[in-house]
Amino acid sequence: MKTASIVSIGNEVLSGQTIDTNASYLSGELLAIGIPVVSVYAIGDDIDSIARAFCLAAGDGDIVLATGGLGPTDDDVTREALAKFLGSKLVFEEKLLRKIEDFFERRTVEMSPRNKVQAYIPVGSKALENNIGTAPGIMAQAQGKLIIALPGVPSEMKQMFEESVLERLKEVAGGQALAVRKLKCFGAGESSIAELLGPLMQRGRDPLINSTACHGVITLHIVATAGDEDAAKEMADEDEKLLLNMLGELVYGTGEQTLAQVVGQKLRQGNKTLAVAESCTGGILAALLTDVPGASDYFMLGWVTYSNSAKISELGVGAELIEKYGAVSEPVAVAMAEGARRKGGTDYAIAITGIAGPGGGTEQKPVGRVYISVVWAGRSETKGYFFSGDRDSIRLRAAQTALNILRLKLMI
Amino acid sequence: MKTASIVSIGNEVLSGQTIDTNASYLSGELLAIGIPVVSVYAIGDDIDSIARAFCLAAGDGDIVLATGGLGPTDDDVTREALAKFLGSKLVFEEKLLRKIEDFFERRTVEMSPRNKVQAYIPVGSKALENNIGTAPGIMAQAQGKLIIALPGVPSEMKQMFEESVLERLKEVAGGQALAVRKLKCFGAGESSIAELLGPLMQRGRDPLINSTACHGVITLHIVATAGDEDAAKEMADEDEKLLLNMLGELVYGTGEQTLAQVVGQKLRQGNKTLAVAESCTGGILAALLTDVPGASDYFMLGWVTYSNSAKISELGVGAELIEKYGAVSEPVAVAMAEGARRKGGTDYAIAITGIAGPGGGTEQKPVGRVYISVVWAGRSETKGYFFSGDRDSIRLRAAQTALNILRLKLMI
Repeated sequence: MKTASIVSIGNEVLSGQTIDTNASYLSGELLAIGIPVVSVYAIGDDIDSIARAFCLAAGDGDIVLATGGLGPTDDDVTREALAKFLGSKLVFEEKLLRKIEDFFERRTVEMSPRNKVQAYIPVGSKALENNIGTAPGIMAQAQGKLIIALPGVPSEMKQMFEESVLERLKEVAGGQALAVRKLKCFGAGESSIAELLGPLMQRGRDPLINSTACHGVITLHIVATAGDEDAAKEMADEDEKLLLNMLGELVYGTGEQTLAQVVGQKLRQGNKTLAVAESCTGGILAALLTDVPGASDYFMLGWVTYSNSAKISELGVGAELIEKYGAVSEPVAVAMAEGARRKGGTDYAIAITGIAGPGGGTEQKPVGRVYISVVWAGRSETKGYFFSGDRDSIRLRAAQTALNILRLKLMI
Repeated sequence: MKTASIVSIGNEVLSGQTIDTNASYLSGELLAIGIPVVSVYAIGDDIDSIARAFCLAAGDGDIVLATGGLGPTDDDVTREALAKFLGSKLVFEEKLLRKIEDFFERRTVEMSPRNKVQAYIPVGSKALENNIGTAPGIMAQAQGKLIIALPGVPSEMKQMFEESVLERLKEVAGGQALAVRKLKCFGAGESSIAELLGPLMQRGRDPLINSTACHGVITLHIVATAGDEDAAKEMADEDEKLLLNMLGELVYGTGEQTLAQVVGQKLRQGNKTLAVAESCTGGILAALLTDVPGASDYFMLGWVTYSNSAKISELGVGAELIEKYGAVSEPVAVAMAEGARRKGGTDYAIAITGIAGPGGGTEQKPVGRVYISVVWAGRSETKGYFFSGDRDSIRLRAAQTALNILRLKLMI
């Protein structure tokens, strides 16, 4: 099996300013074509450190993917470092300069003379086109390893990887096949799911099953390896079926699906519409729903009734309800949802009211207390929840939980 | 100057499933106490690879901070790898086991026998308490370097770092002082700001000034080093003043401030209120505003009028306006903002309408076209924008731009 090592270059990666998303993006892409990443080296903009990292990475993997340090400024020294590692020199390529000049011309921006440095690449290496930025990538071979340097700007890096690198790496990977499936779950913690799956999650098992958690969404990864693609796919499919059976409605989707996408699909299929009324989540539920292209087919409108008077004037919540039970209460959640459904003229409505903190909590209603109500055709389901974590987590968790409640309703 | 190297341990870091936020958190914390991180090594759960990474890291820095691999499962091998690197053996500590047992007892959960492995640490090293999880950390010294292993779960890692590691590292750092300032800018690109600042951003200058960009927000970092704290602070303050003068109203805040926080502060100071009406941003603007604790002081309510009929019924936008100019147009943006201000009874109102894509664009109104209107006391400012990027970027950029327009209004 071919393996890869990643080199992340740039002082910003080491100063805590930038989270290195390039490494995780490349790791995921490589794994998907059957090339596991075995190590990642992050170093600053220093020629010797970078050259040493190239050396270490080439020792670890068959492929070395570097990002960063290809820009036009003084601290962009990946070109020099790569030449040093390769034992070659930088050479000026007229053709590259013309492409960089074209880039500025198209934008009717004058090129700074210092961009000229980006037209230099190590002798014997190949430039990779950058269609959305000025930094060309570099591909070289050394010691039987394939070395690829990509820009550090994530959008440029991704586009170059997809357009000029991926196909080449698939060829390199040839001969081994890997099938990856992802199951997305909501409604149980990571440890409960691990408990449910028991020995299936044992290390060393093939397919390998592992889990990651993010704001209540548990993603189960099934990674099957085999001699050919069909065999790997079959193994992965079998495990996927097994997990779906074991986890039932805890699984809401596959791949990169979000809860909002799944809810949207079900609404669209049923030709149903939705309105939402939010207090503590302050627009997050609507934002999640409208994050899905084409959401206008089923999502009609939302209210962020942050103040009590907005709950009364916009959603028709009774002032006496708020007085008697408080804005964070089951009756107010129901009234908000009913008001949203009535005013929106939709099939379904969701309302959320709660205390996201850090202030505003009391002994009876602590920070994290949230009421969620879903109403449809004269019926409703309303429940109180307690979410732990900070303001962000509580808000996101509440919005996701609301989507999950509607998902389960729409499954019936 | 003392330096540090970070070792991130875990297959999940290499599979692209988990973005390594631990490394960037630790890098930032270390830099803030004057210990720059010079390298990061990420490797999988393999004893030899981890031991080698410890070795490389100890070669790079005076301090080695490792995260991950301290859990109770078979693939948690950081303990063994650290013992191997130190040339010592693992020893069972009764006291540690009792703490782990206590942890389960407090939660009235039965301890799994496999948690017992967490009570082993290398001979001669010191355990670090974990108050919110079961994995104790480990601190050891070798070859004149300080080696610290922390859990991989971010919340446990952070708490342990703050409670048991930070003070010790401050002692180690002693003798050098560092002052860091951050200026947050909006309204110009990273390269334009670099152009404006010119030689100030030169590499090697002290204070060092560099920039990072995220969804239109440019963060300028000023890092000053000196023999003592006062001198470093003075240098950083001087540069901060210089930059503020040069960049003027491009700078919206300092530190970790968001545009929504700054807008909120200004509204609160002026005792003003705000309502928002969103179409393409679908709740993001409201979510950003309500992300700020206490936003209920000035943020009254928001509408996500995704459908045309919602724009008409909820905000009183004239149907003929939509017919004549389209929902994505300047007149409709103004009408939405005016409707929101009137119905919300607020001092200010913002409205956003646009095409976030990927579908829905036309030649006249391509994906990325967004109209933003801000109205107040019988006056309004409305403008058409064109944002590039994907749906996510366009939506976030539109919402941030709207906040920036209001910020500039509130400065007058």
